[in-house]
Amino acid sequence: MRISDLGEFGLIKRLKDILGSTSIGDDCAHVRLGEYNLLLTTDLMLEGVHFLRRYPPESVGWKSLSVNVSDVVGNGGEPRWALVSLMLPDMEVSYVERLYIGIKRACEFYGCDVVGGNVAKSDRLGIDLFLVGTSDRPVGRRGAKPGDSLFVSGTLGDSRAGLELLLMEREDYEDFELALIERHLRPTARIDYVKHIQKYANASMDISDGLVADAGHLSERSGVRIDIDSSRLPLSKELIRFCEKYEKDPKDYALYGGEDYQLLFTHPRERWNPFMDMSEIGEVSEGKGVFVDGKPAEGGYRHF
Amino acid sequence: MRISDLGEFGLIKRLKDILGSTSIGDDCAHVRLGEYNLLLTTDLMLEGVHFLRRYPPESVGWKSLSVNVSDVVGNGGEPRWALVSLMLPDMEVSYVERLYIGIKRACEFYGCDVVGGNVAKSDRLGIDLFLVGTSDRPVGRRGAKPGDSLFVSGTLGDSRAGLELLLMEREDYEDFELALIERHLRPTARIDYVKHIQKYANASMDISDGLVADAGHLSERSGVRIDIDSSRLPLSKELIRFCEKYEKDPKDYALYGGEDYQLLFTHPRERWNPFMDMSEIGEVSEGKGVFVDGKPAEGGYRHF
Repeated sequence: MRISDLGEFGLIKRLKDILGSTSIGDDCAHVRLGEYNLLLTTDLMLEGVHFLRRYPPESVGWKSLSVNVSDVVGNGGEPRWALVSLMLPDMEVSYVERLYIGIKRACEFYGCDVVGGNVAKSDRLGIDLFLVGTSDRPVGRRGAKPGDSLFVSGTLGDSRAGLELLLMEREDYEDFELALIERHLRPTARIDYVKHIQKYANASMDISDGLVADAGHLSERSGVRIDIDSSRLPLSKELIRFCEKYEKDPKDYALYGGEDYQLLFTHPRERWNPFMDMSEIGEVSEGKGVFVDGKPAEGGYRHF
Repeated sequence: MRISDLGEFGLIKRLKDILGSTSIGDDCAHVRLGEYNLLLTTDLMLEGVHFLRRYPPESVGWKSLSVNVSDVVGNGGEPRWALVSLMLPDMEVSYVERLYIGIKRACEFYGCDVVGGNVAKSDRLGIDLFLVGTSDRPVGRRGAKPGDSLFVSGTLGDSRAGLELLLMEREDYEDFELALIERHLRPTARIDYVKHIQKYANASMDISDGLVADAGHLSERSGVRIDIDSSRLPLSKELIRFCEKYEKDPKDYALYGGEDYQLLFTHPRERWNPFMDMSEIGEVSEGKGVFVDGKPAEGGYRHF
């Protein structure tokens, strides 16, 4: 049997069985050291798969740290120490330096440090980043409770629209289009939510695969049903203009578009904080599966 | 300027300058969390660069963990938690499972756990491993003191000879040749030395680039001169037979061959422990550079 027959999640399940591990399944691994909780995560960006050579290298560096910070923040943790493992073809040194400038800026923004790494020759450029975080109260995907409301931070679908615009390779873009492209190239992990997640969330994760897919992970790990009300999805004005211009449905982008790196979390409704950009988009109840407007989302129509 | 003009170590120096880091330079990063010392390390194995597809996948898995454990042990630490980042082309699932069986066996041997990881599509197979260790007393490359003796564990040069045998792609090998090949494919990190290193070593590291090259790193970071006495290099009987058969000089293999994953460390002579397989091969004094039998090793004749 080949990997393509089994799929990514099927493969991961088999590898977990070999290791006999029960802890694998969240974005971060959680281990304890004395009274400390460590969160460990890794995410890889490969040229041609996750980014293209023509993207600004600073944005690639920024994003490679941000996607890892997003995993730690999604678990209610603060990012602390990163290792950078570079796979490098023989290329311009200035490219690698600009990549590192992006990583450095992201470190300053998120308040963490690159403490080491590795450089290996490769025929394809890749950045594998490893991040250690700490948390007073790690929050995984498992704790969603019937009666909780479902929340997301920020707006959804922008990154997918930005990617589609990027792939058009046009000479000129309108300002709102550049804003969407920026959200794809330089996503910002929601480090401003760490305290809220630590304090109030029963379950939490970042949205990297798309809302419906990630709600599916949350539902499965928590053993609950999740209902999403599509009329309450937070949409940016840029995404709405994009969808008007290209005759698309913004709900498709918000439900299925990936790489927004917003947070998806559950807690009682009364913990909603009006000073943060969080939206209540649904609820958690007994049962299983993800439903959009009352209809099962699995196996349903997917735009992409 | 291209990376090939600058070299690996030149590139790493530039990237360190961008990060403004002073801690990068040992095999492991050392950070403190409360009263705990954490050692963080990463090492990558890419198909075609570090291993070939025809190697037994269990040995590739074993080695990918072992080289990281070796970094932690070389710093006087115990391996604790690993993340495995896999880059996978579409291939047989059984290959990936056998790779994981090798990782699992290595975890059991070294007493650590794989707690998470990542899987990404790639056109080339790769295993990037991240390891977190802990140590009561981390030992880096910086502490070698004039007056210390220089020690190595085990025997040197076997892995290089094993690699050369492997690349011959013969149908039949003699038993001593298979033993050398095994030492290349399945190196064992010297976890049995952790307590000795923690207790007595002033400076310590594992030998991955070859004795002379790694002694150079130790000399530079500690600001000392290192003298190696080539008549005292520990040679296995298998390496000696190999060199007789193929008319090679075993000293070249012991001085310059890489990937033995033995330990190189310094402490006063009286700390020598006769119950361990450590050999005193030289001494540390004031000055700089690495000398073999009194002659400067840098820029000298290199066999490979």
